[in-house]
Amino acid sequence: MKENGKQPSRRRFIQQTAMAGAGASLLLSNPLQAFSQNDHSNTRNMSQNIKSKGYAAVDTSGKLQPWEFERRPVGDNDIQIDIKYASICHSDIHQMKGHWGPQKYPQVPGHEIAGIVTAVGKNVTKFKVGDRAGVGCMVDSCMECDSCQHGEEHYCENGQTLFTYGYPDKKSPTGITQGGYSTNIVVRDHFAVHIPEHISLQEAAPLLCAGITTYSPLIKEDFKIGDKVGVAGIGGLGHMAVKLAVSKGAEVYAFTTSPDKVEDIKSWGAKEVIVVDEAFKNMHPYNKKLDYMICTIPYQFNVAPYVACVKPYGNFTYVGMPEGFQINLSNIALAATRVNFNASLIGGMPETQEVVHYCADNGIRPEIQMISAEQINDAWEKVVNKEARYRYVIDAATFES
Amino acid sequence: MKENGKQPSRRRFIQQTAMAGAGASLLLSNPLQAFSQNDHSNTRNMSQNIKSKGYAAVDTSGKLQPWEFERRPVGDNDIQIDIKYASICHSDIHQMKGHWGPQKYPQVPGHEIAGIVTAVGKNVTKFKVGDRAGVGCMVDSCMECDSCQHGEEHYCENGQTLFTYGYPDKKSPTGITQGGYSTNIVVRDHFAVHIPEHISLQEAAPLLCAGITTYSPLIKEDFKIGDKVGVAGIGGLGHMAVKLAVSKGAEVYAFTTSPDKVEDIKSWGAKEVIVVDEAFKNMHPYNKKLDYMICTIPYQFNVAPYVACVKPYGNFTYVGMPEGFQINLSNIALAATRVNFNASLIGGMPETQEVVHYCADNGIRPEIQMISAEQINDAWEKVVNKEARYRYVIDAATFES
Ligand SMILES: [Zn+2]
Ligand SMILES: [Zn+2]
Ligand SMILES: [Zn+2]
Ligand SMILES: [Zn+2]
Repeated sequence: MKENGKQPSRRRFIQQTAMAGAGASLLLSNPLQAFSQNDHSNTRNMSQNIKSKGYAAVDTSGKLQPWEFERRPVGDNDIQIDIKYASICHSDIHQMKGHWGPQKYPQVPGHEIAGIVTAVGKNVTKFKVGDRAGVGCMVDSCMECDSCQHGEEHYCENGQTLFTYGYPDKKSPTGITQGGYSTNIVVRDHFAVHIPEHISLQEAAPLLCAGITTYSPLIKEDFKIGDKVGVAGIGGLGHMAVKLAVSKGAEVYAFTTSPDKVEDIKSWGAKEVIVVDEAFKNMHPYNKKLDYMICTIPYQFNVAPYVACVKPYGNFTYVGMPEGFQINLSNIALAATRVNFNASLIGGMPETQEVVHYCADNGIRPEIQMISAEQINDAWEKVVNKEARYRYVIDAATFES
Repeated sequence: MKENGKQPSRRRFIQQTAMAGAGASLLLSNPLQAFSQNDHSNTRNMSQNIKSKGYAAVDTSGKLQPWEFERRPVGDNDIQIDIKYASICHSDIHQMKGHWGPQKYPQVPGHEIAGIVTAVGKNVTKFKVGDRAGVGCMVDSCMECDSCQHGEEHYCENGQTLFTYGYPDKKSPTGITQGGYSTNIVVRDHFAVHIPEHISLQEAAPLLCAGITTYSPLIKEDFKIGDKVGVAGIGGLGHMAVKLAVSKGAEVYAFTTSPDKVEDIKSWGAKEVIVVDEAFKNMHPYNKKLDYMICTIPYQFNVAPYVACVKPYGNFTYVGMPEGFQINLSNIALAATRVNFNASLIGGMPETQEVVHYCADNGIRPEIQMISAEQINDAWEKVVNKEARYRYVIDAATFES
């Protein structure tokens, strides 16, 4: 693998935001707290495995339980993060339940992670101990292919994108990557982002998946102020999509199946909220009305009435990952809409850093509900039942007890 | 319905090409032949049903048999065409076999039709008796909606696109539209195109579906000279796609499962021909190589390795209509390619006129094999077995015997 110093130049905005991040890290509000878990981080033996406590799935039941495990030692290009908060993504539930294929257990989910750097490897210049840092959906890649060298590490052409939990990882004492529902994580520096001072760690956590996953396609769409942007599915991802699209000047049309979300969604600046009925009848007035639509629905559903809301030759981006990842489309229906259908998976590291800065700078915050470790199983049920409002954030201190 | 005279203005190129077409029609090479079937076309009683002979399906067997039937009288906005040639499209076979839903029988297929105008209704100014004319996949629409008024009658927003065969049609004595495997057709003038003198009628026929279906998305893609354009499936549609893309300056990569087509395809100017193996292994070198791909494969297949040949953020257009119109996509695979997936259905009437002129003017001709009516059933089997080279054209005179 390449050294950190050999990283290619990134887009302009990343160079700017990385600078801002480095600056902000000098201004820790409470530096003492940052070191509380690892007083000797800079002097201890860096070749030792790291003990971690978390909540793990042990089977496909969708029930997690406390688990103590080890992480790899902090390597030369690694940082160790003392996790302060990890939030719950619907993907965590899908993967642990085996909806996307068989899993190795015990497995700790969690890919929306925010905390404080407690140790850095000898080659690391991007972070120093005490920095506020976040980790999202991936923790490594080849770093050499075209995609990796152009900020799309999630699409590594050598197939070496290493996702944050459940992926085979020789360096991990448990044989697979282990996620963020835990007290700490060891990660290659490139795959952590800076979290500036002017956003709380608990509000930053959901940006690492829900934020980037919606931000990436919205930015690529490059819509104009006043363009009509649809958001389908107003959960963890969808509510960020609404807020981000509103902040970029779109006239947002939100489609939800939950009538009790209407007032919330309007309060975020959506122009209209459509409560979709089973027959999709009240979607008819929106036929061919939208310039663009992003769909975050994380289960198999009838995609056709949503695609039909987009103007001919407009784009439709599907970011929800349903069971089996399968979408069924009628070719003739798609032809009739004349819509471009695409899918998008999270975002690259430069863009992940960008969305954290963008939200911090522009006052865009996820709606969060704080929970403790023992509330995770309840929270998962609520997520499945569409009862989350809108992101559960776990206080990682409660993994210690 | 609107009168012909109220037609909206069309795109510039159509105004030009319509003029060219009208001019060409004055120069019929053999005017006597044009009137041979209907000497009294202008004086006979226009309220009478028109007798027609053709080949019809009577069940889902995929076997056609001779059938005599009637067409509606020539209405005020209609023209009657003495069919000279009709060519065989894979869609004919799909629909007659019930692959796209149950059918009403007897049903005459055929939507690639070329012939001579033998009668015109009193409002018709677009054609006169003796004109060379073609009919494609549709024969009527509302003519009033936005799509109809902008040359996209195949996407009529009132759902009134009337396809050429098998669609309920109160005006038809048989209750459904009847297609071109027959001696004549009566069609609203707007849904016929002029066929200029410098292309033979038998070579013009395949342009009415295979030509327009591939031309329409290729033109919309607006690729630059030297762009790498993939064509998947080299049958009736695919071979036109290769020729059209080559003529527009593309570097064409053709993907076929038939090794014996390679020399043909190269002779049409393709840069490379890839004979796809079952495991798609020899497609790997083309991963992310193409600027665009058009796929004409008319059966259910694994679309993923084809989509993967397109560069990130490029477009992929699927024009093949498989059984059940169903496409199965992996959302995560589509995300990984970062490709825009769309589908396209034939093309509008202005564009259909355009492709006929474009091919006539630029020496682009389908590869055709002439057959007589009694060879249709054999030809259908060959089409299904990928043995067509590349379009069977029926001599409509043989329906008379
Ligand atoms: Zn997620
Ligand atoms: Zn890579
Ligand atoms: Zn056809
Ligand atoms: Zn219409």
